[in-house]
Amino acid sequence: MPDRAEIIARYSAVRASTEKLCAPLQTEDYVVQPMTDASPPRWHIAHVTWFFEQFVLGKFVPNYEPFHPQYGFLFNSYYNLVGERTERPKRGFLTRPTVKEIYAFRHEIDVRMRALLETCDGATLAELLPILEVGLNHEQQHQELLVTDIKYILFQTPLYPAYLPSEEFSASKATQSGEWSSYEGGVAEFGHQGNGFAFDNELPRHEQLLRPFQLADDLVSNGQYLEFIEDGAYTRPEFWLSDGWDLANLQGWQAPLYWLQQNDVWRTHTLYGLRDLNLSEPVTHVSYYEADAFARWAGKRLPTEFEWECAVAKRTSKSAECPDTLHPQFSGGDGLHSIGQTWEWTQSSYLPYPGYRPPAGAIGEYNGKFMVNQMVLRGGSVATPAAHSRPTYRNFWHCDKRWQFTGIRLAEDA
Amino acid sequence: MPDRAEIIARYSAVRASTEKLCAPLQTEDYVVQPMTDASPPRWHIAHVTWFFEQFVLGKFVPNYEPFHPQYGFLFNSYYNLVGERTERPKRGFLTRPTVKEIYAFRHEIDVRMRALLETCDGATLAELLPILEVGLNHEQQHQELLVTDIKYILFQTPLYPAYLPSEEFSASKATQSGEWSSYEGGVAEFGHQGNGFAFDNELPRHEQLLRPFQLADDLVSNGQYLEFIEDGAYTRPEFWLSDGWDLANLQGWQAPLYWLQQNDVWRTHTLYGLRDLNLSEPVTHVSYYEADAFARWAGKRLPTEFEWECAVAKRTSKSAECPDTLHPQFSGGDGLHSIGQTWEWTQSSYLPYPGYRPPAGAIGEYNGKFMVNQMVLRGGSVATPAAHSRPTYRNFWHCDKRWQFTGIRLAEDA
Amino acid sequence: MPDRAEIIARYSAVRASTEKLCAPLQTEDYVVQPMTDASPPRWHIAHVTWFFEQFVLGKFVPNYEPFHPQYGFLFNSYYNLVGERTERPKRGFLTRPTVKEIYAFRHEIDVRMRALLETCDGATLAELLPILEVGLNHEQQHQELLVTDIKYILFQTPLYPAYLPSEEFSASKATQSGEWSSYEGGVAEFGHQGNGFAFDNELPRHEQLLRPFQLADDLVSNGQYLEFIEDGAYTRPEFWLSDGWDLANLQGWQAPLYWLQQNDVWRTHTLYGLRDLNLSEPVTHVSYYEADAFARWAGKRLPTEFEWECAVAKRTSKSAECPDTLHPQFSGGDGLHSIGQTWEWTQSSYLPYPGYRPPAGAIGEYNGKFMVNQMVLRGGSVATPAAHSRPTYRNFWHCDKRWQFTGIRLAEDA
Amino acid sequence: MPDRAEIIARYSAVRASTEKLCAPLQTEDYVVQPMTDASPPRWHIAHVTWFFEQFVLGKFVPNYEPFHPQYGFLFNSYYNLVGERTERPKRGFLTRPTVKEIYAFRHEIDVRMRALLETCDGATLAELLPILEVGLNHEQQHQELLVTDIKYILFQTPLYPAYLPSEEFSASKATQSGEWSSYEGGVAEFGHQGNGFAFDNELPRHEQLLRPFQLADDLVSNGQYLEFIEDGAYTRPEFWLSDGWDLANLQGWQAPLYWLQQNDVWRTHTLYGLRDLNLSEPVTHVSYYEADAFARWAGKRLPTEFEWECAVAKRTSKSAECPDTLHPQFSGGDGLHSIGQTWEWTQSSYLPYPGYRPPAGAIGEYNGKFMVNQMVLRGGSVATPAAHSRPTYRNFWHCDKRWQFTGIRLAEDA
Repeated sequence: MPDRAEIIARYSAVRASTEKLCAPLQTEDYVVQPMTDASPPRWHIAHVTWFFEQFVLGKFVPNYEPFHPQYGFLFNSYYNLVGERTERPKRGFLTRPTVKEIYAFRHEIDVRMRALLETCDGATLAELLPILEVGLNHEQQHQELLVTDIKYILFQTPLYPAYLPSEEFSASKATQSGEWSSYEGGVAEFGHQGNGFAFDNELPRHEQLLRPFQLADDLVSNGQYLEFIEDGAYTRPEFWLSDGWDLANLQGWQAPLYWLQQNDVWRTHTLYGLRDLNLSEPVTHVSYYEADAFARWAGKRLPTEFEWECAVAKRTSKSAECPDTLHPQFSGGDGLHSIGQTWEWTQSSYLPYPGYRPPAGAIGEYNGKFMVNQMVLRGGSVATPAAHSRPTYRNFWHCDKRWQFTGIRLAEDA
Repeated sequence: MPDRAEIIARYSAVRASTEKLCAPLQTEDYVVQPMTDASPPRWHIAHVTWFFEQFVLGKFVPNYEPFHPQYGFLFNSYYNLVGERTERPKRGFLTRPTVKEIYAFRHEIDVRMRALLETCDGATLAELLPILEVGLNHEQQHQELLVTDIKYILFQTPLYPAYLPSEEFSASKATQSGEWSSYEGGVAEFGHQGNGFAFDNELPRHEQLLRPFQLADDLVSNGQYLEFIEDGAYTRPEFWLSDGWDLANLQGWQAPLYWLQQNDVWRTHTLYGLRDLNLSEPVTHVSYYEADAFARWAGKRLPTEFEWECAVAKRTSKSAECPDTLHPQFSGGDGLHSIGQTWEWTQSSYLPYPGYRPPAGAIGEYNGKFMVNQMVLRGGSVATPAAHSRPTYRNFWHCDKRWQFTGIRLAEDA
Repeated sequence: MPDRAEIIARYSAVRASTEKLCAPLQTEDYVVQPMTDASPPRWHIAHVTWFFEQFVLGKFVPNYEPFHPQYGFLFNSYYNLVGERTERPKRGFLTRPTVKEIYAFRHEIDVRMRALLETCDGATLAELLPILEVGLNHEQQHQELLVTDIKYILFQTPLYPAYLPSEEFSASKATQSGEWSSYEGGVAEFGHQGNGFAFDNELPRHEQLLRPFQLADDLVSNGQYLEFIEDGAYTRPEFWLSDGWDLANLQGWQAPLYWLQQNDVWRTHTLYGLRDLNLSEPVTHVSYYEADAFARWAGKRLPTEFEWECAVAKRTSKSAECPDTLHPQFSGGDGLHSIGQTWEWTQSSYLPYPGYRPPAGAIGEYNGKFMVNQMVLRGGSVATPAAHSRPTYRNFWHCDKRWQFTGIRLAEDA
Repeated sequence: MPDRAEIIARYSAVRASTEKLCAPLQTEDYVVQPMTDASPPRWHIAHVTWFFEQFVLGKFVPNYEPFHPQYGFLFNSYYNLVGERTERPKRGFLTRPTVKEIYAFRHEIDVRMRALLETCDGATLAELLPILEVGLNHEQQHQELLVTDIKYILFQTPLYPAYLPSEEFSASKATQSGEWSSYEGGVAEFGHQGNGFAFDNELPRHEQLLRPFQLADDLVSNGQYLEFIEDGAYTRPEFWLSDGWDLANLQGWQAPLYWLQQNDVWRTHTLYGLRDLNLSEPVTHVSYYEADAFARWAGKRLPTEFEWECAVAKRTSKSAECPDTLHPQFSGGDGLHSIGQTWEWTQSSYLPYPGYRPPAGAIGEYNGKFMVNQMVLRGGSVATPAAHSRPTYRNFWHCDKRWQFTGIRLAEDA
C-alpha cells in the first residue's frame, strides 16, 4: 500500500502541471472552440476536475454534496451512464462559469480530494487508488490536448500569436538518422505487464505472430515531406487511400496543417510563433492519409503497432537527450530514434486485444466504445507529459485528424 | 457649422455609451459567437472603432498610418470595396487581440479622432461631419446588437446568468390598452425630411397611397400569445406562411425564443436573469413568421410600414413615462402606445424607396445591398439607444430572426 | 351557365396538351429529379390528375371511391389540410406507379370527370365550375413547369440531348428594339377585373400611386448581357445585392444557367439541343440577383409590377407575330415588345394586395401561404400555355431561381 | 491454356446472368438512385460493360475506337487513372443514354469481345485472360449490388412492390441450429492458394496466430434480434460503440433496415413484397454497429475474419440443400451452418495482408485504395452469384451500411 503523502504529492503534482500549462493563456484563449475536436481550455480544466468529483468523491465520500448541481451537466464529456451533458460542438458557446470560477471549483475539489486521501480508511483507499490513477492519467491526456488545442486556437488569427516566447525555443543538436534496422519475426508477447498503471486497452498481454521486418531508425523529416509535395503529393491520386483523396480535395489540403507560404517561403505556425520551416525537423501535423500516402510514394509502408512495440522492446537505452521544447526535433537514441517527438501513425486499426474486457460501470466507457474507425499511434509527442507514455501505450485517432503532433516512421518487409 | 466642442462631446458620449454597456461583462462573455448572427462583443467594440479609422481617419488624415496593419482584415464586417475580411461565422474563433488590447485600440482611435476634430480645417470638417454622423449612428446600431447578442450569449448555459442585477428591474405602471384607432387613407408623404440625420434608406421623401385602416393602440401581450399557443399555434399549418411552417418544424419551435417550461411553469430568460413569464408584458423575440401567424389566428393582419408611419405622425405626444428597463413593458402613450418597447414587424418588404440612390463608394454598401429578402420593422426597442430611432427609421431583418426585441402590433382594413 | 359540351371540350383540350408536351420524352426522362425544384414529369402528370380527384371528384361525387388509396399520399404537393405526402426532395426516388400506370390513372380520372360533368345536376355544376377552372389553370402552370423541368433534366448529361428536333426551331424575323417609352404617374387601378378567370393573388382590384417612369420597349439581349460579363459581372461586388453576391460565389456562377464555353465559344443548352449562343436573342435563365445586378451595371433599375401592368394596359395591340418556338426570341409589338418570350423580373416583392383574402379550405393554400421571400414576375414565357397568362397575372419565384425562362426589362425614373 | 469456346461460353453466361436479373424491372426502376450507395441499374449494366471496353478492348484491340466518346466519362466508377467521371451522387440524375441504348452498347461490346476472344493470337489471349477474369468477377459483384440496390429502390414507395412474385418464394426446411463448436488455436495459413481466381486482397497467403475460440454453428435469428430490441437495444448506450450510438440516434434507427410495424405487427420488405416478419429466419440488413451491439448484449463477440476462415476450412461438406430463394433462410450444413445466406460481419478491419501489393496501373485501384475505415465480411449472401464467393473471399463495407444482406454469427473465446 503506497504512502498517503506520496499519493497526495503525486495528485498535487499532476494537478499543478495542468495549471502551469495554462499560465501563458489570456482569459480569451480559454473560451473558444474553433473546431469540434479542439475543446476550450476552460472546459478541459473543469472536465478533469469533474472526473475526480464524479468518480472519486461522489463514490467514496458518504452523502457527497456536489460543488454545483449543474457542473455535471456542463463538464461531462461522453459518459452516457452518468447522464446528459452539453453537446460537444457547443462547448465553445459557453462563457460561464468563468475561468476564475472554474479555478475556484478546481481548488475546492483539490481540498476535498486531499481530505479524502488523508482521512479515508485503508479499505476505501485501496478501492479508490486504481480510480485515482485513472483520473491522473486522464488529466495527463487532457494536458496533451490542452497543448494541441491551444496551438490550434492561436492559429485562428493571422496574427499567429506565440504561446511561449521564441527565446525559449531550444534547438536539439541531434540530426536525422538515415539508417534502417532489421527485426526478426516469430511469436512474441505484446501488451502491458507488471504492476504499473496501464489503460485497459493495453490489456490483456497476449501473443502475436510477426514476420521479419525493417524499420527506419528515425522519423521522416520536413525536407523529405517537402520532396513529396514537390513531386505532386496532393495532385496524384495513385498514392492515396480513396477516403483520404476525397477528403484532401474537399478540404483543399496542400501541405501539413500549420504550413503556410508567405512570399514563396514555407513557414509554420508553432507554439513559439510563426517560424521558417526547418527542413531538418521531423514532419508533424499530418493525417493518417498523408502518412500512408507518403509511405506509398516512398515505396515503403507504415509499421504495425506490434512491429513498433517489438522494436521498442529491443532498445537498451532511451532516446538521447533532447531539449524540453514544445516542438518536435530529432533526438537520437538507441534503435528507434526520436521517440516521444511525434506520435507515429501505425497501419493497425484500433481494435480490442484478444480477450479484452472493459471495466464495469461508467468507467468502462473510457476506451472500449471507441474501438472502431480509428488507427493506433505509438510513442508519444513533445506534448505528452513526462512519464505518461509507455512502450505498450496505444493512442488512437480517426484518419483525418491533423491537429495532434503526429508524424511518420517508415517500415518495410524484410 | 456646428461647434467643435459639441461635436467632440457628442462623439465622446456615444463612444462612452458602448463601454458602459459592456461594463457588466466578464472577459469570457466578450469572446463567443453562439450563432452567426450574434457577434462576439469584442468584435463589436473593435468593428465600430475600425469604422472611424477606415472611413474618417483613413480618409481625412494625410498619410494616415493605421493603428495595426491587420485590424482592417480582422474587423471589417461586409465592405467588399475595402478588402478581404474574417469570415463572419468565424468571428467567435478568435481570441486575439485581447479585450484589453481592443480597448487600447479604441482609446487610441478616440485620441486620434478628437485630435482630428479639433485641428482639421473647416472645409475638411464640413466634409467629414456627415461621415462622422454615420459612424456614430452605426455605433448606436451596434449598441443595440451588443445588448441582444449578450442576451443570446448568456442564454447558452443552463445557469442563465443575469446581465444586470434583478433588483434593477423597474416595473412599469402602464397596462396594455385594448383600444383600436382608425386612420384615414389617401396620398401622403413618407420618408425623412429636414436637416437631421437619417440613413439613406429613409430617403427620398415621397408619396404613397394608403387605404383607410385601423391599428391596435397597443402591442400584443404574452398572455394573448399564450392563448395562441394553447390554441395550437405551432401545430396548425393553416395560420402559417409556408416557409415559416417548414422552419418552425425543422427547428422545433414551441414558443417565442427565451421561453422555457420548468415544472409546467412558463419562465423566460431576460437580461435580469430567469423570470416567471409575465402575461401582462408585450410579447417579444418572435420571428416575422410567428407575428404573421398570430395575426392570421387573430383574424387581423400586420400593418404596412407606411400605415405605421402615418399613425405615428398623428401623435401629439410621446409614449408616457416608462422606466428605463432593458425589458419590454407596456408604456402608455398617445395614439400608438408602447412605442420603443419592441420593434414592430410590418408586412412591408425591405425595398428601396422610389428614387433611392445609395451614396458613392464603400459607404454605399451600408444599406442598399441588403434590400431584398427582409421585412421592415418600425419603432425601436428597449435596446435601442435613446434618440437613435425616428418615426421614419427603417429597421430590417430576415423573417426567421428572433433574437432581437421584436414584437407585434395588429392592423386591419377599415 | 356555360354549355356542358364546351366545358368538357375545354377540359379535354387542356388535358391533351399536357400529354402532347410529354410525347417526346423517353420513359427514363419521366423519373428523375436532379434538383428539388425540378419534379419528375411522372409526378407532374399524376399530381395534376390527383388535383381533380381530390378537389372535384372527391367533393362532388357522392361516396367517391379513390382510384388508389395511396395516390393521395404519393401525389399531393403541399396541401397540409388534406394530409401527409411524399417529401418533396424524394419525388425522384420513386419508380412506381410506372409511367404507364400513371397514364392509366389519368385516363380513368378523365373518364370519371367527363361523366361527372355530363351528368351532375345544374347546382352541382355551378358550384363545381370555379374549382374546375382552378384545376385547369393549375394544370397549365404544371405544363410550363414540365417544359422547364424537362430542359433541366436533359441538361444533366454531357450529351445534351434535344427535346425537339433542331429542324423545328423556327427563327423570328423581329429584332430587338432599342427604344424607351415614357409613362405618366398618378393613381390608377391594378389587379384583375371582369368575369374571366384569375387567381386569387390578382385580387382585389385596387389603387396604386405611380410616379412617372420609363420602360425599355424591349428585353435585354444575350449580347448586352455578355458585355456585362466581359465588364466583370461576376467578379465585381458593387453591382450585387449582398445575398446574391454570396450565392453567386458559393455556386460559382459565371454566366446565366445553360451557357457553356466550348473551345472559347459560348454555347447554350436549349430544348432543340446545344446551340451557339445567339447574341440577338433575349437573355434568359437569369436569377433575380443577376437581373438586378445587370440593371445596376446599366445605370437603370427593374420595373415594379405596377409600372409593368400600367404599361401593358396602354398597349393597343399584342406582340407581333413570332414563330411558336420553345425558345425566347425578339418578337416586336406595340409599346412593350417581346411580351411572352421570357418572364420579366420586377423589383416588387410578392405580397398580398390590400384587402386580399385567400379562399376557405385547402384550396386557400394555393397562393396565400407563399407570399413572402419571393419576387413578382410578369408577362409569361415561351413555355407558358397560350391564353394562360394575363396582364394582371402574377408569377413569383425566390430570387435565386434560374431554371425558369426568366429575363430582364429595364426601367428608370422619368 | 483454356479452350476458346469455353472462355466465350463463360463470358456469355456471366453476361446473360446480369440481364436475367434485370428482366423483372420496369424501365423506371433502372433510373433512380435513392441514396449514393444504391446506383441506378442502368448505370450498373453500362459500367460493367465499360469495364470490358476500357480494360480489355481498349488495351488489346489495335487502334480501338470506343463505342461512344463520352461513355467513359459517364460510366467510369472510381478509376482516377483513366480520367474524369460523373460524380457518384449524380448517377441518378441522368436519363440518357436510355436503357435501350445501354443494352445496345452491351450487345455491341459483347460482339466485339467475342470477336477478340475468337481471333486474337495466343500470346494476347494469355495476357488478356487474367483481366477478363477480373472483369467477370467484377460483373458478378455488380450482380449482387443490382439485387440489393433494386431492393432498396423498390422500398421507396409505400406500395412496396415485389421484384419477384411471392409464389416464387420457396421456404427452407432447415431450422436454426443452437449449437456451438470449439476450434483450436495456433499458427495457421490464411488467404488464397492455388490456381483459381482470387482478388488481390486475398493475397498473399500468410500465417496468422489464433487463440482457441468457439463459434455459433448458426446465424442469429430475427426472433433473437427482436428479443434484443425488446430489451432496449436502441435505447441503451452501454451496448454500443460510440460512433454507432451517435449514428443510430441521428438516423432514428429502431430496428434493422426494412422492418416496419403495421398495426403493431412487424413486417418486412423483401424481394417478394411485404411479408410478416418470420422469427425463424436469420436476421439481415443490420449494420456493423448493430451486429456488434447485439453481440455485446448477448455476452459474446463477433468472430475475426481468420477465425471464420479457420472454421470454414474444417468443414467436410457444404451447407445442406436450401431453396434458391432471394431471401435469407436457415440452411443447415456441416460445422458452420447457413453459409451463403447472409454476409457475416467480422470484427476484423479491412487491411492489407502482410506483403500485399496492388497490381500495377488503373486495375490496382480495384481493392487497395479502399483498405481503411471498413470491416471485413465473410461468407456470401443469397444475392451473391453461385460460385462467386470462396472461403478466402473478403467482402468489406463501412460500419453504417445496412442495405446489403448482412447478418450476425457470434463467437467467444474458448
